Amino acid sequence: MDLMNLFKERYSVRKFTEQKVEKEKIDLILEAGRLAPTAVNNQPQRIYVLESAESLAKLKNVTPYHFDAPVVFLICYDNTKCWKSPFNGKDMGTVDASIVTTHMMLEVANLGLGATWVGYFDPEVVSKTFDLPENIVPVALLPTGYPNLAPSPRHEERLELDKTVKYI
Amino acid sequence: MDLMNLFKERYSVRKFTEQKVEKEKIDLILEAGRLAPTAVNNQPQRIYVLESAESLAKLKNVTPYHFDAPVVFLICYDNTKCWKSPFNGKDMGTVDASIVTTHMMLEVANLGLGATWVGYFDPEVVSKTFDLPENIVPVALLPTGYPNLAPSPRHEERLELDKTVKYI
Repeated sequence: MDLMNLFKERYSVRKFTEQKVEKEKIDLILEAGRLAPTAVNNQPQRIYVLESAESLAKLKNVTPYHFDAPVVFLICYDNTKCWKSPFNGKDMGTVDASIVTTHMMLEVANLGLGATWVGYFDPEVVSKTFDLPENIVPVALLPTGYPNLAPSPRHEERLELDKTVKYI
Repeated sequence: MDLMNLFKERYSVRKFTEQKVEKEKIDLILEAGRLAPTAVNNQPQRIYVLESAESLAKLKNVTPYHFDAPVVFLICYDNTKCWKSPFNGKDMGTVDASIVTTHMMLEVANLGLGATWVGYFDPEVVSKTFDLPENIVPVALLPTGYPNLAPSPRHEERLELDKTVKYI
């Protein structure tokens, strides 16, 4: 496993086979998230694993994005646990949950599975639909499963570095 | 390179030797960030590489956090380029910049270098100090260099999964 190759080969998988994701693979994906660094090591991430037919069906209410993944991770943070910047009071929960989700997304690819990071949802509707406590803030959905296509060449082009980097 | 081992072994490096980070390693760290996925592939990340004595000295004005890294990446996003949620208008730039920074942080560790993710700064002071355009939002500082200690056992304990994960 070469890390740069993993970065290059990973792509957003939006179509899945019906094959279930094995429990031991789900555990590895969660472990990858568990090991992620968070601000002041507060570990405010709270992750819901949606795998029952009932929970998966509810997703149709929270995003217009259509996917038929056998398991979906809903990554949130607890806004009473996350670190807040003393400078502007802004909480670091979105950053923390994003680091956790990136770890999980990379482990998904490393296991030969596929996922798409979905941010296209209304957090309030998610909270209501899944009856989340008030202090839990949804950040990402990660529908995960076996790709229904062999990995294809990367279809997502990236800008050259000189468009996004400056030496100062 | 085993990904889970990289997750386990990576730790926050806060002390660095005086050794410069080679240009080809800086390029690989930037390439890791370039390959990161972002919402709708908008790639709003804007990265400033601080390596001049003058720029590094200015950091003392923006964070009480003390570090003597030979190179510091300042990861920002362009709020005119990032995707905005149609549900609540919230922009995804913080999420995008966090994915990019996570890729970079992992590549740093993969290269045998060390870094600490620093969020302890006032974004407004950063913008003023480095004369950033108004549309550029600072998200993370990543001081990077050669660790001045051999990698030590992980000192950051993580919660057990049952504290952060629920199956629903």
